[in-house]
Amino acid sequence: MKMYFYLPTRIYSERDCVKKHGTEWAALGKKALIVTGKSSASNGSLSDVTEVLKEHEVPYYIFDETEPNPSVEMVMRVRDIGIQEQVDFVIGIGGGSPMDAAKAIALMIANKDRGADFLYQKEEAAALPVVEVPTTCGTGSEATPYAILTRHDVQIKASLPHKIYPKYALADGKYLLGMRRDIIVNTAVDALGHFIESYINANATDFSRMLCEYGMGIWSSVKNVLIGAEITAEECDTLMFASTLAGMAIAHTGTALPHGLSYYLTYEKGIPHGKAVGYFLPGYLALSGPLIRKKVLSLAGFPDIQYFTAFIHRLLGPMEADEELVTKAVRGMMSNAGKLKNVPYPVTEAMLYQICGMAY
Amino acid sequence: MKMYFYLPTRIYSERDCVKKHGTEWAALGKKALIVTGKSSASNGSLSDVTEVLKEHEVPYYIFDETEPNPSVEMVMRVRDIGIQEQVDFVIGIGGGSPMDAAKAIALMIANKDRGADFLYQKEEAAALPVVEVPTTCGTGSEATPYAILTRHDVQIKASLPHKIYPKYALADGKYLLGMRRDIIVNTAVDALGHFIESYINANATDFSRMLCEYGMGIWSSVKNVLIGAEITAEECDTLMFASTLAGMAIAHTGTALPHGLSYYLTYEKGIPHGKAVGYFLPGYLALSGPLIRKKVLSLAGFPDIQYFTAFIHRLLGPMEADEELVTKAVRGMMSNAGKLKNVPYPVTEAMLYQICGMAY
Repeated sequence: MKMYFYLPTRIYSERDCVKKHGTEWAALGKKALIVTGKSSASNGSLSDVTEVLKEHEVPYYIFDETEPNPSVEMVMRVRDIGIQEQVDFVIGIGGGSPMDAAKAIALMIANKDRGADFLYQKEEAAALPVVEVPTTCGTGSEATPYAILTRHDVQIKASLPHKIYPKYALADGKYLLGMRRDIIVNTAVDALGHFIESYINANATDFSRMLCEYGMGIWSSVKNVLIGAEITAEECDTLMFASTLAGMAIAHTGTALPHGLSYYLTYEKGIPHGKAVGYFLPGYLALSGPLIRKKVLSLAGFPDIQYFTAFIHRLLGPMEADEELVTKAVRGMMSNAGKLKNVPYPVTEAMLYQICGMAY
Repeated sequence: MKMYFYLPTRIYSERDCVKKHGTEWAALGKKALIVTGKSSASNGSLSDVTEVLKEHEVPYYIFDETEPNPSVEMVMRVRDIGIQEQVDFVIGIGGGSPMDAAKAIALMIANKDRGADFLYQKEEAAALPVVEVPTTCGTGSEATPYAILTRHDVQIKASLPHKIYPKYALADGKYLLGMRRDIIVNTAVDALGHFIESYINANATDFSRMLCEYGMGIWSSVKNVLIGAEITAEECDTLMFASTLAGMAIAHTGTALPHGLSYYLTYEKGIPHGKAVGYFLPGYLALSGPLIRKKVLSLAGFPDIQYFTAFIHRLLGPMEADEELVTKAVRGMMSNAGKLKNVPYPVTEAMLYQICGMAY
């Protein structure tokens, strides 16, 4: 039996956790930079955060124009604002885009003499304390050290080599209530991708597998809301909880082929992250050994790979990528050493084409 | 669904982890204080640690006279040695006694102007970095912030209010090979106590329950070695892994009545910790609601409470405590607010007598 464990984030996953634990997290600094998008104003997350800050007399600056798949350029612009505003901690509110941006901005404010190239330099460096408040049920960024930015210089999304663990993760399912159905679906599929890619992973240990086994069971218990009608408040809590667990899993293993391939679809065609990941899940499962495939399908509540593939196709439709883009993704993936080493078997181009083929 | 999670310890649980990750943990400081007992020399743990330190040219001082259930007085003596030797990190090797002592000593060296009373003062304070190398399969101290010392001033063992999370936990099952059978049994029962007391606990969340559910299954898979003959190397790894998981569980919930009651038996009669805890497990289970009792028994692999009680009695024999000691334990427990608040129902003296009654 084996375990590699490290996750120095304080995680609260419960209803009203932003306010309930406000005294704790608001003590992180003297002025906060809030990084978010436009929708956090409508789901109540932004006002929960600002109410806590006001109550504790912590001033803050709100940047609410986070772009989807935030770029290095955006991070550098907001970094400058943060320095000018003299903030000493950063709060990310929203999906993966603002949460990842918050980490990168916190790193660059703490290293204010460094240029944008520092983002992708492998070097140990401190970041300002980060608080993450997820409002989707997918990225798990609140429980990982990862930040993925869009690099226009090399025309792809890529993970920073820096590990920026949030100080606090405050996951409240109520922010999912009233969320657009396609966002719920795409992000819940992203969370499933995290479980599957962490489970079928060269870095998996008994501990990360525990998170996946338990988490896929929880995910499975609510998966039918993805093809059904109304989602209850309790189901929102469950989706949010599963998403954070999935983040805890990939925090220990990293992701694998579906994530690696997805970045090309998102960069070239703007396909939402979870959707782009989901396309490749049936193929990644099909390529794995029969025993582990059966186990994963059983844990996630699918009788067989055909049923699973049909479920994913029903949720996402066929992949919107032509031959040229697939070739680009496959070639790019073959040179992505960081992701390839997470796959528990040697990967060939033919395998990647097979995975892509199952996405249509 | 709900989760409270915080555990900023880097945990490696695998064969040869002390040496395998030596470069990392040996970088914690410039001089180490090793706190251990006599037996760590024979199971190979001490030489693994000193080899790594020598290889990285980190000088060290060995204190190998840790007493069982270490006292405040011993901690203060070794603190003085540590200050004199100018150590800047502390390595605990052994069972709960040296690992808990290492935490307390690390706290007192970092706060060298404070007297012994500081140990039991509720005040935030830093400690020197701590590395823990468990050599028994019970305490889980490598994965908890707890340190329990013997207080002769109030004649009981008591947990420090300080939370001292180890920087590294290095859990290698090979140190259990050749361990005395009664120590394996007592500490494995302690680990089971951690699972049961964490599961039936007012502070339990879905996350801590996951650790317990998964961990009790693992514990159960090897429980028959406790009443059988030889223990294989793999079973040692499994027992060690389960013990660390159990530590991770109580790190989030604390322990409950069996631990609270056990301290009196250990203090007054020197009964080993795990054994003293185990006496009270059948009663604690019997007192819990029928649904949760059934669940715990099923997870730990026992058909019913009678079978479980017989299993514990076979391992430990009847409790060695007379009426007077039981009365003392019950009265003491009734005034132990810290432990009582972990129990998910109001506790009466009659209940505690009932728990003790099941231990004969």
